[in-house]
Amino acid sequence: MPERNRQVVLKRRPNGMPVPEDFAIAEGAPPEPQPGEVLLRGLYLSLDPYMRGRISGQRSYARPTGIGEVIEGRVVGQVVRSRDPAFGEGDYAFGGYGWQLYSAVPASGLLKLDPAEAPISTALGVLGMPGMTAYIGLADIGQPKAGETVVVSAASGAVGAVAGQLAKAQGARVVGIAGGADKCRYVEAELGFDAAVDHRGGDLGAALDRACPNGIDVYFENVGGAVQEAVFPRLNDFGRIVMCGMISEYNDASPRPGPNLGAVVRKRLKIQGFIVSDQRQRYGEFRAMAAPLVRSGQLKYREDIVDGLERAPDAFIGLLQGHNFGKLLVRLADDPTR
Amino acid sequence: MPERNRQVVLKRRPNGMPVPEDFAIAEGAPPEPQPGEVLLRGLYLSLDPYMRGRISGQRSYARPTGIGEVIEGRVVGQVVRSRDPAFGEGDYAFGGYGWQLYSAVPASGLLKLDPAEAPISTALGVLGMPGMTAYIGLADIGQPKAGETVVVSAASGAVGAVAGQLAKAQGARVVGIAGGADKCRYVEAELGFDAAVDHRGGDLGAALDRACPNGIDVYFENVGGAVQEAVFPRLNDFGRIVMCGMISEYNDASPRPGPNLGAVVRKRLKIQGFIVSDQRQRYGEFRAMAAPLVRSGQLKYREDIVDGLERAPDAFIGLLQGHNFGKLLVRLADDPTR
Repeated sequence: MPERNRQVVLKRRPNGMPVPEDFAIAEGAPPEPQPGEVLLRGLYLSLDPYMRGRISGQRSYARPTGIGEVIEGRVVGQVVRSRDPAFGEGDYAFGGYGWQLYSAVPASGLLKLDPAEAPISTALGVLGMPGMTAYIGLADIGQPKAGETVVVSAASGAVGAVAGQLAKAQGARVVGIAGGADKCRYVEAELGFDAAVDHRGGDLGAALDRACPNGIDVYFENVGGAVQEAVFPRLNDFGRIVMCGMISEYNDASPRPGPNLGAVVRKRLKIQGFIVSDQRQRYGEFRAMAAPLVRSGQLKYREDIVDGLERAPDAFIGLLQGHNFGKLLVRLADDPTR
Repeated sequence: MPERNRQVVLKRRPNGMPVPEDFAIAEGAPPEPQPGEVLLRGLYLSLDPYMRGRISGQRSYARPTGIGEVIEGRVVGQVVRSRDPAFGEGDYAFGGYGWQLYSAVPASGLLKLDPAEAPISTALGVLGMPGMTAYIGLADIGQPKAGETVVVSAASGAVGAVAGQLAKAQGARVVGIAGGADKCRYVEAELGFDAAVDHRGGDLGAALDRACPNGIDVYFENVGGAVQEAVFPRLNDFGRIVMCGMISEYNDASPRPGPNLGAVVRKRLKIQGFIVSDQRQRYGEFRAMAAPLVRSGQLKYREDIVDGLERAPDAFIGLLQGHNFGKLLVRLADDPTR
């Protein structure tokens, strides 16, 4: 029989940058799986920037988390009890739910993971929603051509690292923007971007001019704010902005003004937003493309793993401040496959 | 032999809203057509918002007009002398150049006009660049589906009137924004839009809420400024902004901030600019679609005709202030076909 369940629940809506007191720990009995469901014991919880929107109560594409409810999140775990023939005890699966140790989830929504194919944690990062976000945004909106210049913000992050590597594989000149010398070094030396620009390193515009002598054709936007402001005037005619996220503004109490849109006409720019979950049906296509590249080491990734559910709030706050270095995961229990 | 040529030239770059003193009249001998060229006597000169960009000296998609140079513009006229077998004296043609009475232009760049097909002046409006702008913007970017709500700003203008009528023909609910009761009445009663909203009539946001109970799916942007600000937050998920022009901001000394782009992610918006001249090769496709509709009266248009080249500067300044009502043309000489 499983131990008791623990959850991180929303205590109150954050005002600006979340603080630990916005979260609380709740304990209780693990949920009972219904017919067709399995009880999953979480091994890894994914922390992602989109969660800031969910706990804000703001009208968005998804229902906000209610006060007292468990915070939304994706989990990789191991099946403890199965009430569906598709899963047996001990199977590894992606699709668990929430900042909690145990969840009961419909077997139909779970993806069985084979540890021999790739480390199971990658289903939350390079082979999961973040990697697929990079893939969809580039394929559908960015569409870089060989020789074009692609700029990726949050370049060492879970989405940015994949976006840049895929653009590079398509023949583009790829410039990453990241915060701090360590991340910039990683983006150039490990991920193989053509250049990295430190947004904490002074005059960002001048640094972009040096890194992008032919202007910018595609901007993969994860950050917003001052970075967006520096990139926007450097876009070339027919430039595309892949609007994936604007993490630097998620804690703003009221929206900052954006760039004047006159240049959108003059330069025939395209600025387009997308939400990866609209494209769920393409997960197979993405995984078929990316899993072999991860196995062969051509598609590199980095994980930033924090231990213990109770550290999730602090880790999440750090994510919003750019303190993580690579895909941020919370280890909920030891991974038997490592 | 033709009389002397007269031209309106750029005397100095306007500072904000142009004033008559920014322009000057020059006189001289008409140009000599070279082999392959014709000498065209202008009958109608088209005045269009894009010209404000050309005389500003601002970096854009086209070379700015130099000081002392004739102001750019498209002309419908009659051939006075031809040095190309494709045109004979007396032929009507579209493709003359500049705010002037005569121009020598390559025959290859001229379109012969048949007055029996449609009034020749329409080659500058409903069947010309403005009409085609509406067509391309809707077909390539707006792509309204039946039942969607399309909002068109500058709805009684040369582009807006066509955009709205085409969207209506495609089954959309079409709401026009125009300045003043007369234009709004015209947009509803003559052009057949479902509703018209007066942007001078008080609370634009509330008026849009009433006119667009299901939100806005496509916004055909001709105006910018306060109108853009009112439309933007009312866009539905997957909304599209067809970025055609922002006339209300063309005289700004420095660009105003635009909308925060966070909603572009959340709502998966697409904001895309275009310039009709990039699509020159599709003029035949457009004209084949639109000319029969003009002839049958299904595609309505209205011209605002000012007499005499020397009135072009005042008329152009009025255009930038929204004083024209319909496609603004300058009559350079009597139209023998009317």
